[in-house]
This record gives sequence, structure tokens and C-alpha cells, in this order.
Amino acid sequence: MRIRFYDCKILSMDGTDGTLDVEQGEVWVDGRYITYVGEKRASDQAFDREIDVRGDLVMPGFKDAHTHSSMTFLRSYADDLPLQEWLYEKVFPLEARLTGADMYQLAKVAILEYLTSGITCNFDMYLDPCQVARASVDLGFRTVLVGAVNDHSQSPEALETWYEDLNAYDPLVSFRLGFHAEYTTSRERLGEVAGLAEKYKAPVYCHNAETKAEVEQCIKRYGKTPTAFLDGLGMFRYGGGGYHCVHLTREDMEIFRERGLYVVTNPGSNAKLASGIAPVAEMLEMGIPIALGTDGPASKNCLDMFREMFLTTALAKLREEDASVVDAREVLRMAVSQGAHAMGLPECDCLKEGKLADLIIIDLHQPNMQPVNHIPKNLVYSGSKQNVRLTMVDGKILYEEGTFYVGEDPEEIYAHANEIARRIQKV
Amino acid sequence: MRIRFYDCKILSMDGTDGTLDVEQGEVWVDGRYITYVGEKRASDQAFDREIDVRGDLVMPGFKDAHTHSSMTFLRSYADDLPLQEWLYEKVFPLEARLTGADMYQLAKVAILEYLTSGITCNFDMYLDPCQVARASVDLGFRTVLVGAVNDHSQSPEALETWYEDLNAYDPLVSFRLGFHAEYTTSRERLGEVAGLAEKYKAPVYCHNAETKAEVEQCIKRYGKTPTAFLDGLGMFRYGGGGYHCVHLTREDMEIFRERGLYVVTNPGSNAKLASGIAPVAEMLEMGIPIALGTDGPASKNCLDMFREMFLTTALAKLREEDASVVDAREVLRMAVSQGAHAMGLPECDCLKEGKLADLIIIDLHQPNMQPVNHIPKNLVYSGSKQNVRLTMVDGKILYEEGTFYVGEDPEEIYAHANEIARRIQKV
Repeated sequence: MRIRFYDCKILSMDGTDGTLDVEQGEVWVDGRYITYVGEKRASDQAFDREIDVRGDLVMPGFKDAHTHSSMTFLRSYADDLPLQEWLYEKVFPLEARLTGADMYQLAKVAILEYLTSGITCNFDMYLDPCQVARASVDLGFRTVLVGAVNDHSQSPEALETWYEDLNAYDPLVSFRLGFHAEYTTSRERLGEVAGLAEKYKAPVYCHNAETKAEVEQCIKRYGKTPTAFLDGLGMFRYGGGGYHCVHLTREDMEIFRERGLYVVTNPGSNAKLASGIAPVAEMLEMGIPIALGTDGPASKNCLDMFREMFLTTALAKLREEDASVVDAREVLRMAVSQGAHAMGLPECDCLKEGKLADLIIIDLHQPNMQPVNHIPKNLVYSGSKQNVRLTMVDGKILYEEGTFYVGEDPEEIYAHANEIARRIQKV
Repeated sequence: MRIRFYDCKILSMDGTDGTLDVEQGEVWVDGRYITYVGEKRASDQAFDREIDVRGDLVMPGFKDAHTHSSMTFLRSYADDLPLQEWLYEKVFPLEARLTGADMYQLAKVAILEYLTSGITCNFDMYLDPCQVARASVDLGFRTVLVGAVNDHSQSPEALETWYEDLNAYDPLVSFRLGFHAEYTTSRERLGEVAGLAEKYKAPVYCHNAETKAEVEQCIKRYGKTPTAFLDGLGMFRYGGGGYHCVHLTREDMEIFRERGLYVVTNPGSNAKLASGIAPVAEMLEMGIPIALGTDGPASKNCLDMFREMFLTTALAKLREEDASVVDAREVLRMAVSQGAHAMGLPECDCLKEGKLADLIIIDLHQPNMQPVNHIPKNLVYSGSKQNVRLTMVDGKILYEEGTFYVGEDPEEIYAHANEIARRIQKV
């Protein structure tokens, strides 16, 4: 399928000068790839479809760099509770009742929502990554799965099998080594994961320093913060990253910088669960790469990158008591190109010939985008799901003008999810 | 015009039991008023239009209880700056160049955006309230204007004239006594405003305790916090309220409670300008009535009540380090019924026979609303502008399925705004 987008404003996010310039022109797609980004010009080949963008913005899709898609069944089911009660009385007992088929169905609801938010790829951690892989492929969505080894589910053996199998499963799917968190995984198991990192020379990801208590307990247990302890096991020799990273020490951040580890910040979830505000301004200043994630719908409810972008800078401003920290343009890079790099998808980081065609159209003909003073800043400070006109993944349009093109009826997906939620929630 | 909404889920927000129950049924509108809310039933009169709500949610519109609509010209023009630089180098000099005609045009952009966010009424403070009144009436939007007396613009005489004239101007418009803030208004002028409050037995509103510096300066000047000082002038004898209220003392809150003053919280603006987090949990516990506002597009950029609702509870949770404070249901009441009462519009606070027909339809057939676990909580934690299917003000549908019905072409409104922005920003 050859598609031409014309009369576009283009935020390619290509290049390193940091200006985030918006240019006028066209974007061409052929099959899975972008074949041209630039000024209006004649093509010697015919297109299957030519889309009049009417002066709206074409840009790379957002990357949701930390989420748990299948947790849609808990969306708005257990809010306004203390963290421990929420986790141990609501989340864990209900999760234990999920079947693989449930996880497959529930992930689909999340995938539809990603599309409405202009998210073209997610970095998903859950009990059975195969189910999320299957749901993604069936709907045409790109996903990077990550292991969640811990003492209660997922063994290092399973991790290795998935690493081999899911990385060969489908062009839309990749798999990264990972474990749930230090506090849920024995030293022995962690050592085995570190062994796999060494064997495959691969990066490793995990929840890290989400809560203060988690860090304190690790120090009590091992005399070190989670970052220092895990690094001491050789876990991050080939890179990787941490989800949340609210309570990193300066020494932890030095390790992140030295190892080139990604911080995936989840400001909405950290606020809603009262976990704290990550030191994003300090991390940025140190040159630590940062990506953004929504976290799962049990903790954050919506999978909305516009909300996370606003929160990333707004909460940093509150934390530092300085309205000038964490410029919106930095946030936009976190949500797009840094996210792609955090997941190991450099071919999805910008709009450029040869890159994968993961792109979105943002409606600038909406009042929240008017008058047009500064498009990148306005995306972060004023943008909303309502501005997403089109979401294309891997060269295919999956969402356009409010309609899904995923090969399934959304109403059926919702019906399955409601059925599962009712069954699981029944005491 | 008689309109029947059928196959509705209804969140009437009527009643005092606090359950926020959602019921199945119909809503009928005749002219400006709601004539029926309840179970499906036969009507003996014909309807001009019957709308199939398809099981979506009908609820009262949101009330944006603090904003400066005409400041759209500064949207995303001067972000990521320290507060003082932003205010004194960007906002004030550019505002000084605005004409009345500019304010009229610029307010229209904001009104379109309110409609996309399901906001059916705003509480607007700006240099020339007559312009905002005119724009609102021309587009069919409901507005409560408030005086902004200070030492540089707006005299107490003008305030009195507007109080008389704008309260008789149009059914869509009302006017409340108000001044900009303690720190911009001399004691003498404040005394004159308090005199008008006494003369008209009317409530008074103002910016209050937005920043720490503002409170400290007032204490230095008068030996009292702004709230205590203003109350000492007799300002709040007939009620009123404060915008922002980030840095109220316990004594200030006691005054708010005793006088029945409304706190209008603006969490997005307070975060973006690094002003702090208002003590909303404490205020709630004390029984102080709270409403929500977006603040103007110069400071908060977007006029999005979904974002403010999420922030109200999420920031309170961060502040108190407790995920259970400020239940989402309380926030929904702030955004709807409390907002109406704060503005002096009890006839817009819920869906009920005899109330004004200011209502919205929320699309529940979107992935962020699925599965359906708890509609009121989900509105606060997951809702977005993308869910707003229809916005009706004063019995007229002004926005439906992405199209505006305001008697003017949005593109022309945007063109005017861009022209003004370019002219004003030219050095």
C-alpha cells in the first residue's frame, strides 16, 4: 500500500539541533516504511491513497514506554485507596483469577485506547507476554514486551524461552529481558536474570524505586539501594532501564548515566498512588535519557500520553519550585524519540526515509491549538486525545477520524472485557 | 425547541445522598429548561428532535469557575519561564496592546474550547467584561463575569456600572463584584469595593494566595494574610470566594468556612507556574465549598476540565502522601454542582425538572471508558475531551459529534485570533 499525505505541517523530530522545527510538505509511505519526507514534489509512482492533511500536523507516534495493557479490567475499580490496600486487597487477588484468554481480550481494549491517544507502540509488562503479543499482532499494533520475572510468577527459564521465541514471532513484536522488581524477586533469581543479560549481551528492565518504602527495604536487606544492588549483580552491563524511578539517589543516577540506562517516568501513576514526584529536572541536567509511560489502567486508569506529557513538566516545576525547568520540548522528545530508543526501536524514532511508518496526524483546526503560537509546546501543554485525527502503525492506518480499522468490532472487544471484569470481580 | 434524549445513562447529580448514582432513562428539554428526567415514558407532546443517546451518559455540564477567556492570544507563547519574567515581560506588556475588539474575538476561541470540554458555563475575569459578555451571547454560551478592579485598570465606579448593566444584559450573562487581587489594589480601592458589597449585599471574588510571595508581602504590608485583611475590610460579609487559594493558613480557612466562601482551585495553572499545591484535602475536611477552574490559556494553555479534575485529586494525594484523600466523586461535585453554586447559578447545578438545560453527553463507547466499572470515578480518572459527544447550553446544542453550532465558522474565529496574536506579538 502506497500512501501520500499532502498539505502537511511536519514535525519530523529528525536531526539533533533540538529546534523541533515544523515544516510544510508531504510524507510518503510504501508498505511498512516511510519513503519520503519533504517539500511537495511529483512522484513517478502512483499512490493507492492520497490523504489531504489540510494543514494539520504529521508527526511520529508517541511511545508509551511503561504499561500493563491487560489490566483494563481493573480500570476505575479500586481508586482512592491507600497503596498497600489497593495492591494487596484489590489488584493481586483479582489478577490471580485471570486466564490467558482474559489477558488477550483485555489487552485489546488498551490497544484501542493507545490508538486514540496517538500511541503507536507500547513497552508492556505482564503475567503472560504471549497473550499481549497475540492481541497486538491481531490488531496490527506494535509492542515491545518485557519479562516480569519474580518469585511468584515467571521463571528465568520462561524468560529465556520468550526471549528466543517472541523476538522471532512477528515484525510487530519484540521482547526484552526484565524482571518485576527487586522487592518481589530473590537474589538467586535476580542472579539468573543477570546471567541471561550476560549470555545475550542484552539490556534489562524492571520497576525501580517506585516508592520510598521499596528503597528503604532494599537498603535494609542488602545495604544498598535497588539500583546499586542490581548493578552490583551485573544486571545492567548491557544497558536497560528502570520504570518509575521516583526515589533514586544521586549515586543511583550516576549509575544510570554511566550505564546509559533509561528512566521511564510515570508521573500520573506516581501522583495518583501518592508515590512522589521523580527528580526529572535533575536527571535531565545529568544527561540521563528519559522516556514516558502511562503505567497500567489499574493505577493510572487512562492510557493518555497528553496527560503524561503535561504532568512530566508540571510536576517537575512543582518539585523544583521553578516554572522554567523541564522545557516542553524536552518532554516531547521523551514521549517520542527517547521512548523509541528506550524500547530498542531506533527505526521508530522520527519521520525520515527508511524509518518504519509509525505516525499520527494531530488536528490543529481545534480551538485548543489556536492561535498557532508554538506547535511543540502546545502539544505538551494543550494537546488532547481529541486532537488525534489518525494513527498509523507499520504503514497501516488503524484509527482515522474516530473510527478503528483493526479488523474487529470495538463493541465486541468491550463486551468481552465487561464479561471478564464481571466474572473476575464476583466474590 | 423540544428535544428528547432517549436510551440514556443519566448522572443527574440531583439529591444530597452523595451516591452519584447512574440511572437509565430519558431527559426532555423544552426551550431553555429541563422538563423531565426519569424512566422511559410516553409524552403527550411532540418533540422537534429525538436524540438516540445509545446508552451513553447524559450529565450536567462542567463549570469552569475561574478563567480569563480572552488570553488565548498568549496560549503557548511564553511557557517554561520563571513566574515573574512570564508575568512582567510577557503577559502585562502584551495585554496592554489589546483592544476591546481583540478581546471580543479572542474570547470566542476559548468558548469553542469550553464546548469541546463539556463546559457549559465559565466564571470569567478580564480587562473588559463587556467584550466577553458580547462574545458569549453571540455564540450562545453562558458566562458569569467578575470584576477585576485594581490600581491600573477598572475602577469601583466601572464595577458598579457593570453590576447594574451586565446583570440586566442577557439571560446568558451575569456579573459578580470582584477585584483582581490584594497585591494589585490599594486599600482605598478595596474599601470602595467592600462598600459596593455592602450596598448590594453581594458576594465578592478575587485572586487570593496564589503564591507564597503574595501572602508574605501582604503580611509585611498589613500585618495580616490577604484573607484576614480583606475580611477585616468587610469584603466578604455577603460571601464570595477566592481563586487559587494555594497558600491559605488554617486561620484563613476558618474565615472561608465561617463566611461560606468558595475556594476555586486551579491545580494545572498552579503546577505549571510552580505556585504550589492547594490544601484541598484539608479544605474538604473542614467543609469549605470548592469549585474548579482552568485559569486562563496564558498560564494553563488548555481549557480542559478533565485535566483539572484529575489534577485536583492527584495533586492532593501527592501533597498528603496518601492515595485515599479527595475521592474522585468529591471532585466531580466540585466540577459541576459546586461550580454552579460558586458562580451563583443554582439553576445549573444538576439535571432536574425546572433547571436550566445546560447538559452534555459523554461517549462511553470509547476504550478509555471500558470496561464500565465505575462511571463517576472513570470520568475523573480517565475522561478526556474526546469523550464529549454533545454540549447543550440554555437548551441549545452548540457542539455535537465534533461540529460547532454557534452561528459562526470556527475557521474565521481562528483566523481573527491568529491575526491578533501576530499583531500583538510584533515588537
